[in-house]
Amino acid sequence: MQPLLKKFRMPSNGLTDSPEWKALQKDACGASAIRTRALFEQDPERFNKFHIALDGLLFDYSKHPVTAEIMTHLIALARAAELESWRDKMFAGVQINTTEDRAVLHTALRHSAPEGLEVDGENVAGFISNTHEQMRRYSESIRREGLIHDVVVIGIGGPNLGPTLVYEALSGPAGAPRVHFVSNIDGTHITQTLEPLSPDHTLFIISSKTFKTLETLENAQTAKSWLDDFKPGLSREHMAAVTANREDAEAFGIAPAQIFPLREWIGGRYSLWSAVGLPIAIAHGFDQFEALLEGARTIDTHFQTAPLDRNIPVIMALLGLWHRNFRACTAHAILPYAQKLSRLPAYIQQVDMESNGKNTDRDGIRVDYETGPVIFGGPGTDAQHAFFQLLHQGTDIIPSDFILVARPNHGLDSHHRQLLASALAQTQALMEGRTSEPANDAPHRRFEGNRPVSTLILEQLDAYHLGMLLALYEHKIFVQGILWRLNSFDQWGVELGKTLAQDILHQLNPGVVPTRENPPAPDPSTQNLATYLFKSFINS
Amino acid sequence: MQPLLKKFRMPSNGLTDSPEWKALQKDACGASAIRTRALFEQDPERFNKFHIALDGLLFDYSKHPVTAEIMTHLIALARAAELESWRDKMFAGVQINTTEDRAVLHTALRHSAPEGLEVDGENVAGFISNTHEQMRRYSESIRREGLIHDVVVIGIGGPNLGPTLVYEALSGPAGAPRVHFVSNIDGTHITQTLEPLSPDHTLFIISSKTFKTLETLENAQTAKSWLDDFKPGLSREHMAAVTANREDAEAFGIAPAQIFPLREWIGGRYSLWSAVGLPIAIAHGFDQFEALLEGARTIDTHFQTAPLDRNIPVIMALLGLWHRNFRACTAHAILPYAQKLSRLPAYIQQVDMESNGKNTDRDGIRVDYETGPVIFGGPGTDAQHAFFQLLHQGTDIIPSDFILVARPNHGLDSHHRQLLASALAQTQALMEGRTSEPANDAPHRRFEGNRPVSTLILEQLDAYHLGMLLALYEHKIFVQGILWRLNSFDQWGVELGKTLAQDILHQLNPGVVPTRENPPAPDPSTQNLATYLFKSFINS
Repeated sequence: MQPLLKKFRMPSNGLTDSPEWKALQKDACGASAIRTRALFEQDPERFNKFHIALDGLLFDYSKHPVTAEIMTHLIALARAAELESWRDKMFAGVQINTTEDRAVLHTALRHSAPEGLEVDGENVAGFISNTHEQMRRYSESIRREGLIHDVVVIGIGGPNLGPTLVYEALSGPAGAPRVHFVSNIDGTHITQTLEPLSPDHTLFIISSKTFKTLETLENAQTAKSWLDDFKPGLSREHMAAVTANREDAEAFGIAPAQIFPLREWIGGRYSLWSAVGLPIAIAHGFDQFEALLEGARTIDTHFQTAPLDRNIPVIMALLGLWHRNFRACTAHAILPYAQKLSRLPAYIQQVDMESNGKNTDRDGIRVDYETGPVIFGGPGTDAQHAFFQLLHQGTDIIPSDFILVARPNHGLDSHHRQLLASALAQTQALMEGRTSEPANDAPHRRFEGNRPVSTLILEQLDAYHLGMLLALYEHKIFVQGILWRLNSFDQWGVELGKTLAQDILHQLNPGVVPTRENPPAPDPSTQNLATYLFKSFINS
Repeated sequence: MQPLLKKFRMPSNGLTDSPEWKALQKDACGASAIRTRALFEQDPERFNKFHIALDGLLFDYSKHPVTAEIMTHLIALARAAELESWRDKMFAGVQINTTEDRAVLHTALRHSAPEGLEVDGENVAGFISNTHEQMRRYSESIRREGLIHDVVVIGIGGPNLGPTLVYEALSGPAGAPRVHFVSNIDGTHITQTLEPLSPDHTLFIISSKTFKTLETLENAQTAKSWLDDFKPGLSREHMAAVTANREDAEAFGIAPAQIFPLREWIGGRYSLWSAVGLPIAIAHGFDQFEALLEGARTIDTHFQTAPLDRNIPVIMALLGLWHRNFRACTAHAILPYAQKLSRLPAYIQQVDMESNGKNTDRDGIRVDYETGPVIFGGPGTDAQHAFFQLLHQGTDIIPSDFILVARPNHGLDSHHRQLLASALAQTQALMEGRTSEPANDAPHRRFEGNRPVSTLILEQLDAYHLGMLLALYEHKIFVQGILWRLNSFDQWGVELGKTLAQDILHQLNPGVVPTRENPPAPDPSTQNLATYLFKSFINS
């Protein structure tokens, strides 16, 4: 087996030659001998030192096989990366998204930007309060009038994953409209969603920053026909849009009063906090949307003010970096022990993998170290019966985050006790392992243990604590991006496939306008598959 | 960075010293120079040689950066592992699950076992035809009588993931009962599911091989109270069970005629083909359940009879092994371009990670090579807007399976054309990459390409082709297990956490019966978290 990056030993950006990196490499040489169980024996205060509590949220990282010295060296790496200065630049609205010349200000949406901040000549706070006012009035009128029973959100990526997660995680008042989400261009998605709905009681929200997203426009067009076929002109009343491209939304036929604005400084995967959250305001009430922002703001303040060694997102990021770069871990599991957080892994997966799944640093240099890991997961206890086998006894070490909710939102106490005990027991088993009886006689019952585990406990699953949780991960991912010297805010990796898709459509379907002149023929595999597919399809 | 397995350089099982393994290691030395694009240029027949079509299913692996010579060496490894002999043992009912002394005969459920086969003194074919007759009669009577509008399946792991996938993937006749699935012990799951249902029109199916699964029994108890609180004795009529433990099911209160049998030789994650498929028979009709089995049987026959170098599951397995053991790939993406297959990644994830996420071989020796990878994924096109960034531009190479359906099951042709073009374009982009203009001026727009991609095309998404698809993955995973010398059919890794959970419950709640005398105190982290959690919970 050869090192993965061998062929890329090109000009280094210097990170791996820095004294802070080298200190960690030295730590790594002895790291396989570190047993977490022994660390607890050496220091009875370990739990107290290795957990942080903050406003109904508890973060425990004592179950990672890392010493205080390693943590100190990781903090030194963060300081050498000028993390605090980068953090302050983000909050201040500096254009840290350099490949797109944009500020990164989703934190402003949580009222965490400096007062008086202007971007592109516009007062940010003013923009936000105006948008909030528009969202509040619209969501209240929808609920008051009672005409709309179903809201269908059409969007893909961030505008889909964020609102879906929050909608499922929280409970709305009785009688509020149901919300459905259509994202996939697969026509099954919109067909199945609309099938039981009635056009005169259905509102569509078209959510696309550019108003050019292929899937979203195609689905929006189908939705518009569905409304107007039922009653000509109905789409004018029953469609709203969330977009930074007001012009195209109006040309599409959305009434100006029903267009909710975005701005360039709101990235898709950080857009939940913007008008993209409109479905939450409609279904759960604007106050719950505000509580979500408030929770995120608490974390913004914590991230901005807590010392690095007591800073939850910083520590989450540093642990992840340690395992990724110095312990060869390539994946990270997100394990919410709450059915209502079933979609959390998919949400975090996008924010993380789209932000830091990059091999070119912010100066354009191919990195010579690993960056973003694979993020995957699933809800406990279900995941125990799915992939936990590999977490316990697989050949790779996979760090994991267990997310628990202390108070149930139902009256089935026995269920909840067993849920919590199961979660804790898994964290214990992953750390402690078992090498004594019966493992000594039955090797297949041996657990090596020493798996790195973080535990996050939310007091309860409400909008405020959910906002905290999501902002924690955002900032964790930000910190890792800074340390890996990435621009975490672009996503050029999705661009090539889009261009090629239009070429393929054009070649098979001369009616489709090509995106470039004389696109080159695809490889023979793609060419043959395309011919096969379209033949089967057309003959169907 | 140090090799992950260094500390385990213990007695080797000899695999990595075999001449076949060493030949592949030699291939691996030059492998980073292999460019798939160049392979197509060298051999215009590459697509024809590197794809296999079978009864409405097409498998293309020409987009993997592997040469014909590497494939030959991989086949040699399979022969050295006596793959064909192991395969025949499985189909013949030999007890290849040695840690549990069981045969592995889910293939028999698809009528792929030899005639006259007996296990534990019972004729297997007779057992299956009796069970089918019971399933057919029961499902037909439920549909004919029309009393049941909703079926709630209570089960976790295999009995949940399989039926959920198939239920969502296929369409039932109008008016058939809706099916809901409750798996999580989180009380939210059953509470939310039952909330809109009416007890006198709801049937529960309790699906647990042992009838001892913690989550399933807890949820079954809650369901039983819900029925009997509505009308005493209602649970006797409105509950069925699928289990190998008839005695406990009867003691629980299930009417004997409504107990559907399992056998020891049906593993949970392979149980979809057994009476665990009862909800499919009820919702979609017994004929669709049979078509599912028929599709799987077609693959069983292919797996048993096709030469190894034209054998789809064998080739899928060998490619995965090549990337995992010789190209340091640690994850594998499952990407169905079909909204109705959204749950396929979770289903395959369980079958794969629970089968081969093991570091002890079938002789009890700690392996000195990597086994099962992390399996993750999501439906296209959504996944393009979520984690594809990392597939294209991340630092790790992640092999991926694209699964396409040629014919749409709706009339929105424009949607379907774009869905197919998107999928093909992604496979092309992952393979071809882009290093010319504009990438040469803008490094963040550079794509290294050469990512390994398989494409699977189903003629249409029906029960037959779905059965083919699922059986393909089962056999792929079987082949990898044999080559890695694992017992793919046990799951001891889930055992330790279960024991510890009971200890934790007992310590905090002396009413709970401990599973062992004087369980040792957990580590301070677990102890402190438990105290914190239960205090918050009790004070709520």
